[in-house]
Amino acid sequence: MTNVSIITIGDELLIGQVIDTNSAWMAQLLNSQGFSVTRRVAVGDSRESIWKALDEEAQHAAVILVTGGLGPTADDITKPLLCEYFSGKMVVDEQALKNVRHLFENVFKRPFTERNKKQAEVPDVCTVMQNRRGTAPGMIFEKDNCIFISMPGVPHEMQGMMENDVLPLMKERFQPGQIEHRTLVTFGIGESSIADMILEFENALPAHIKLAYLPNFGMVRLRLTSKNSPEKNPAEEIGHLFNQLRELMQAHVISNEDQPMEKIVAALLLKEKLSMSTAESCTGGYIAHLLTSLPGSSAFYKGSVISYSYQAKQDLLGVDGDVLAKEGAVSEAVVRQMVTGVVAAMDTNVAVAVSGIMGPDGGTDDKPVGTVWMAAGNKDKQIVQKLHFRFTRSRNIQLTAVNALFLLRKFILEDKQAEA
Amino acid sequence: MTNVSIITIGDELLIGQVIDTNSAWMAQLLNSQGFSVTRRVAVGDSRESIWKALDEEAQHAAVILVTGGLGPTADDITKPLLCEYFSGKMVVDEQALKNVRHLFENVFKRPFTERNKKQAEVPDVCTVMQNRRGTAPGMIFEKDNCIFISMPGVPHEMQGMMENDVLPLMKERFQPGQIEHRTLVTFGIGESSIADMILEFENALPAHIKLAYLPNFGMVRLRLTSKNSPEKNPAEEIGHLFNQLRELMQAHVISNEDQPMEKIVAALLLKEKLSMSTAESCTGGYIAHLLTSLPGSSAFYKGSVISYSYQAKQDLLGVDGDVLAKEGAVSEAVVRQMVTGVVAAMDTNVAVAVSGIMGPDGGTDDKPVGTVWMAAGNKDKQIVQKLHFRFTRSRNIQLTAVNALFLLRKFILEDKQAEA
Repeated sequence: MTNVSIITIGDELLIGQVIDTNSAWMAQLLNSQGFSVTRRVAVGDSRESIWKALDEEAQHAAVILVTGGLGPTADDITKPLLCEYFSGKMVVDEQALKNVRHLFENVFKRPFTERNKKQAEVPDVCTVMQNRRGTAPGMIFEKDNCIFISMPGVPHEMQGMMENDVLPLMKERFQPGQIEHRTLVTFGIGESSIADMILEFENALPAHIKLAYLPNFGMVRLRLTSKNSPEKNPAEEIGHLFNQLRELMQAHVISNEDQPMEKIVAALLLKEKLSMSTAESCTGGYIAHLLTSLPGSSAFYKGSVISYSYQAKQDLLGVDGDVLAKEGAVSEAVVRQMVTGVVAAMDTNVAVAVSGIMGPDGGTDDKPVGTVWMAAGNKDKQIVQKLHFRFTRSRNIQLTAVNALFLLRKFILEDKQAEA
Repeated sequence: MTNVSIITIGDELLIGQVIDTNSAWMAQLLNSQGFSVTRRVAVGDSRESIWKALDEEAQHAAVILVTGGLGPTADDITKPLLCEYFSGKMVVDEQALKNVRHLFENVFKRPFTERNKKQAEVPDVCTVMQNRRGTAPGMIFEKDNCIFISMPGVPHEMQGMMENDVLPLMKERFQPGQIEHRTLVTFGIGESSIADMILEFENALPAHIKLAYLPNFGMVRLRLTSKNSPEKNPAEEIGHLFNQLRELMQAHVISNEDQPMEKIVAALLLKEKLSMSTAESCTGGYIAHLLTSLPGSSAFYKGSVISYSYQAKQDLLGVDGDVLAKEGAVSEAVVRQMVTGVVAAMDTNVAVAVSGIMGPDGGTDDKPVGTVWMAAGNKDKQIVQKLHFRFTRSRNIQLTAVNALFLLRKFILEDKQAEA
């Protein structure tokens, strides 16, 4: 199987100013196509570090994907360094020049300068990959049976090159290995409890199949991976094991594929032909954001009222002022009224509402930081839940959102059951 | 200066199922304290890969931080591997056992099993770091003048150990280097234009000071870093250069420190004692989410109406049905009315509103995907802007949010100017 290493270049990665999302994206794409990323290395904008990383990764992999350091400014040293590393000299690539000029003159509408022209220079020992989404061209080098591919660090530029150039090249040059993944998603049960439930199953797995536990916000994803199976039909083999796993985890399974909670709920809403809305207090729009990040979400999602104030809860959601005063905003009665209020305001079949204290401040003895009430339902009935989280603000927001969406899923399934 | 390498362990990092946020967090903390992360390596849950990575990173750094692979399940192989690597044998740590038992019996309220007990085992050749936030203890090993520190991959557990144990240890054992950073944030101007504007400044920088360009959603952060300056007062030296840079970039500067747009706007609102609300269509709650992610945001942020439907725009925001029918939801007239509508509904001083088509579907000849109208203002006046993005849905949502917040900042500053 062809091993791939990823080298990401940039001081910003080493001082933590930027989170590296490129590597995960590249790894996901490559893996789905049967290529195996075995190492990822991040180094700074330092000549010595980059040089050493190129040397070292060539010992580990047949293909080395390099991102970053191709910008037009002095801190971007990757291109001249690669030119030297592969003993080339800089030349202007005419097609890249045309592209850069076009972008400046027609898209950015900014003057085309000498500095921009430099973006079109490449070492004469590389194969150029044209950048359809930006100014810096990509470069492919070969040395000692190893392919080095340099791409910009800007995510959507890198992504274009991976899809248009890198993947076709790799498929042409290497035999992708046979990889099969199947992922089961569970909710509301811990890793170690799962491990005890499936102990025999796990011990009986053949050597070419691995099981991974990936916990994330109350969900645990169980991933079966088969690599170079000796079986005739590896997809069938893993499918069979997957079904066994699903049987064992039955009550806790929320999805048969790796997808986030919002996508699971979206699919259910579409299947049941239900529209939904949200009334968010403490999550401040995060539930709405998760849902509306899904393409096509307008088919089931109608909107949200985010009410940080008592007044808005009364005016826009029709929450009873006396109830607010008596029970407080973080209470069962208020989240119930928030559901009925937003169902009416947005004219939807169902809704979910949350109200809580996310921290770091705002807690009381009675309702400490991390206390959350949530309700899911329709105009006639709701189910409610009180949870208590004990983490940072951002983690509390994320956990509240996932649990609220799970509660809505529960309501829809129970309601369907009751009707049937 | 003490070099630090980070090794993250987990197949999920190499197949792209998980984005590594731990490394950035660790790097940020270490850097702020004068320690320099020089490499970050991710490897899979494979004995050979982990072993090799430990060997290799020991050549690069004096401290090696390892995260991941400490869970209770069979795919977590880090602990037995470290035990073997450092020639130890497994023993139960009594304090860790007490902690795990307490968590299961009192916090998780789940039965305490043999498997959980294993979590309290550690190699007898390490110093144990107790985990105050989870079950897996951390471990410190020493070999050939190199310190190896193993921590869980769960972010808030790792963070607790970094703060409570790792940082104090490093400060005790090593002389942190002198690092100074200053970051200037600009908006609405490209990297290469900036580079031309500050060419002389950049060329005149002393060798121990580096300038980095960090573009991100229309913002470019310019970071000056001084490492082991020969000057008596490095903070003063970099401050002086920072002021020069700010002078040069004047009109484009939006912040004198590295902070996201929402924090810049939040600070301005607090300073001017203004309350705000949002009316979001195409961003679907993302602007609200950015603002409410800030601790204490309830001091200035009152709420949002997220209206994916025409009806909600009319009912909750008072947008004129005739205008909607004639101009369409993505229009100047509608975003103006959304501002006045939400200012009234949420009773705030100012508001920002957006309406657009984020894709991948929903575009027309007249209004292609990526078209966005936005308005910022108060009940009496608004400023508006039409933008056109050409990226993916998620990038379009992020760019719209940042630009809308920038527009609100502009309105507030202009309005203040007009009043003065």
